[in-house]
Amino acid sequence: MSGFPVPTMPAPPVSVVGLGQLGGSLAAALAGAGRPVSGWDVDPAARDAAEDQGVRISQELTGVVVLAVPLPVMGSALTGLRIDPGATVTDLGSVKVPVLAELGAAHGDRFVGGHPMCGTERSGHTAVDPALFTGARWALCLEPGTDLRRWLRVAEIALSVGAEVVPVTAAEHDDAVAAISAVPHLLAAALAAAAGQAGPLALSLAAGSFRDGTRVVGSDPAFVTALVEGNAGPTAAALDRVRAQLARPWADLVADGHAVRTASAGRRPVRVPLDRTALLALGRAGGAVTRRLAAFVEGWVPEGA
Amino acid sequence: MSGFPVPTMPAPPVSVVGLGQLGGSLAAALAGAGRPVSGWDVDPAARDAAEDQGVRISQELTGVVVLAVPLPVMGSALTGLRIDPGATVTDLGSVKVPVLAELGAAHGDRFVGGHPMCGTERSGHTAVDPALFTGARWALCLEPGTDLRRWLRVAEIALSVGAEVVPVTAAEHDDAVAAISAVPHLLAAALAAAAGQAGPLALSLAAGSFRDGTRVVGSDPAFVTALVEGNAGPTAAALDRVRAQLARPWADLVADGHAVRTASAGRRPVRVPLDRTALLALGRAGGAVTRRLAAFVEGWVPEGA
Repeated sequence: MSGFPVPTMPAPPVSVVGLGQLGGSLAAALAGAGRPVSGWDVDPAARDAAEDQGVRISQELTGVVVLAVPLPVMGSALTGLRIDPGATVTDLGSVKVPVLAELGAAHGDRFVGGHPMCGTERSGHTAVDPALFTGARWALCLEPGTDLRRWLRVAEIALSVGAEVVPVTAAEHDDAVAAISAVPHLLAAALAAAAGQAGPLALSLAAGSFRDGTRVVGSDPAFVTALVEGNAGPTAAALDRVRAQLARPWADLVADGHAVRTASAGRRPVRVPLDRTALLALGRAGGAVTRRLAAFVEGWVPEGA
Repeated sequence: MSGFPVPTMPAPPVSVVGLGQLGGSLAAALAGAGRPVSGWDVDPAARDAAEDQGVRISQELTGVVVLAVPLPVMGSALTGLRIDPGATVTDLGSVKVPVLAELGAAHGDRFVGGHPMCGTERSGHTAVDPALFTGARWALCLEPGTDLRRWLRVAEIALSVGAEVVPVTAAEHDDAVAAISAVPHLLAAALAAAAGQAGPLALSLAAGSFRDGTRVVGSDPAFVTALVEGNAGPTAAALDRVRAQLARPWADLVADGHAVRTASAGRRPVRVPLDRTALLALGRAGGAVTRRLAAFVEGWVPEGA
């Protein structure tokens, strides 16, 4: 694309609270890029690991404050820390409606909910990888009350570590991740549990399709339980859609699943004005933001969208 | 283990019919090990690819004849080929009761059903990999009427390409693979189809858990449909067990699935007499054969079995 990119990207300091796999990876990626980044974790070992990656350890939070803690402690993660009243607050939690309710109440329009779609079945500071976000989609919530300037500040952080930003509402996000994250975790658990019932012979014959289908069952059960129970309504609805699929003739089901999985991943570049409606339309079309220009963001949509 | 291994392994010639991913990989692995191996495929391109791997192309089948063709053409694969009347016939098909009914009727006790638990979502001669069987389990059917000497001849071929042999009955095999292969394929298809219903935003946010959970949906739909419809009874029963799991409280389900997936893979070596009952008990315990001695096979069972 031609264009005249304007260097309008501000680079506010970033303060990451929670230095496990996601938070530690983000802090390490930003530190590696020479960005001012501080971090805090209740676990001294996680703090030491982050410090080794060039992250300044501090309980003073300024700029963009990233809450990278498990969902059950999201509301209490800032207790005892000092936060600049002008700071923008974002999170990396895997559900957004409940987090928005809790943190939106606490921080008002200073809060912008986010969810990078990466992370593995590993967790904790020993699973930190500064390249974790490269090429990942990062859902970023644009509610009616979201301050667009703060949204862009968080988006810029996501872009700077190699992610692509998907504008969504919290409700859209939770419906989508129910289908592509919560339900896969439940299906994998059910598959493993049922194979366990089938006995040692079945488990000994288990090969590629079983191993792939159950890899995520290796995730911390507390994390998975929070993921599904924290998004119970959309997850139950998405699970019902899977149940309905399983009741179809198998040949039809297999053909349709194959068609979805192998559909073209073609994309075409677009330029979208810095406007909530236009940005959300980009996300709904399956597209993402890749760069901010002066009054636009640059991104892509799927071919044909 | 101590012992006095006796070089009783015969090395009969092997004739592979069907030179796609499984058959072509087996023929290439045997040729690479200096074994006498011939092959045949209706597709000239598959024959040329096998010849490049050192496989002699021939329509004369002797020694151990391996049927490595899709299930729907298993019964007609030998039409037009010349087979030595003393040859042992085996197959690599993913269901065993229907194949046993068809090929057992045609070949009597010369037939030994088999199923190596490997292969990927790719198929055809371009997906050939001589290392495909290394470390794989290879189910080998021991029916009441199976000739144990012929069973050992086929087992020796599996061992020689790096697989471990799991003695099973055809019915036990079909129940087990319903749980660990047919059902994973159906769940993956349902997951992909339901995500397709959820729309472009959901698919654009799909990350690790969805990609892993749907990888096998990339397999040829005709192969998957044959796999599930050819094993319809056990597959329906295994799918019902998964449905029952999905109806449990999510936290319990996630914990149980995690426990199955992360259970110890410890093993202890065993020596098992060349006896159908003892061999099948080894398979039922989740163990496998790794070597043949004079009057025993050597293998392993899970710790505690």
